[in-house]
Amino acid sequence: MYNDKVMDHFMNPHNVGEIENADGVGTYGSPVCGDMMQISITVEDDKITDAKFKTFGCGSAIASSSVATDMIIGMTIDEALELTNKQIINELGGLPAVKVHCSVLADHAIKSAIYDYAQKT
Amino acid sequence: MYNDKVMDHFMNPHNVGEIENADGVGTYGSPVCGDMMQISITVEDDKITDAKFKTFGCGSAIASSSVATDMIIGMTIDEALELTNKQIINELGGLPAVKVHCSVLADHAIKSAIYDYAQKT
Ligand code: FES
Repeated sequence: MYNDKVMDHFMNPHNVGEIENADGVGTYGSPVCGDMMQISITVEDDKITDAKFKTFGCGSAIASSSVATDMIIGMTIDEALELTNKQIINELGGLPAVKVHCSVLADHAIKSAIYDYAQKT
Repeated sequence: MYNDKVMDHFMNPHNVGEIENADGVGTYGSPVCGDMMQISITVEDDKITDAKFKTFGCGSAIASSSVATDMIIGMTIDEALELTNKQIINELGGLPAVKVHCSVLADHAIKSAIYDYAQKT
């Protein structure tokens, strides 16, 4: 059901946790499954320098957030805002159709963390 | 959102894995979130002597299967068939309403493992 890259990011997820004194923190809850995702970021000179995620969600949510946080670290705020759910899934090498809603958690929580950062600055 | 017992079973789940040469193996896929659950059991003299679960599902699915497998080990087949989803949630000390569908995975996969056992014997 899941490819090797998804399994790998599920077994050894990157960027798990919560950044203390983050510049932006975003949460998003899935209307499909009820799972929550929190993403915290630090920003310097308009660039995302660190990102971490926390979730009680499923393996697909974990794998998606693992690659998505990897992807946004080093991006500018504008680049991260343009990141699509489809790009996250492509980076993972695909997800089963019934599990696409899990990757939406990462996508929305990133946007929410950026809005939180923007509101503060 | 989650009580200490749920968090504890999520962080340190019991009975994770797959029993080799199991007497019964059951799988169930949730129509809500698309997650799958596999439960394997060994049976001796009509009693469940071991149970293990495997899932890519969320924290609630993991915690529910952890307590549910604990509960059925030592039960007779008839007792395990009577186990309800409500009893699993009670044993966990409760689950948020949006996450009740996750505990159904454990419940249905147990029944499916018992049917598999019954068909073989
Ligand atoms: S099923 Fe809820 S995040 Fe995947």
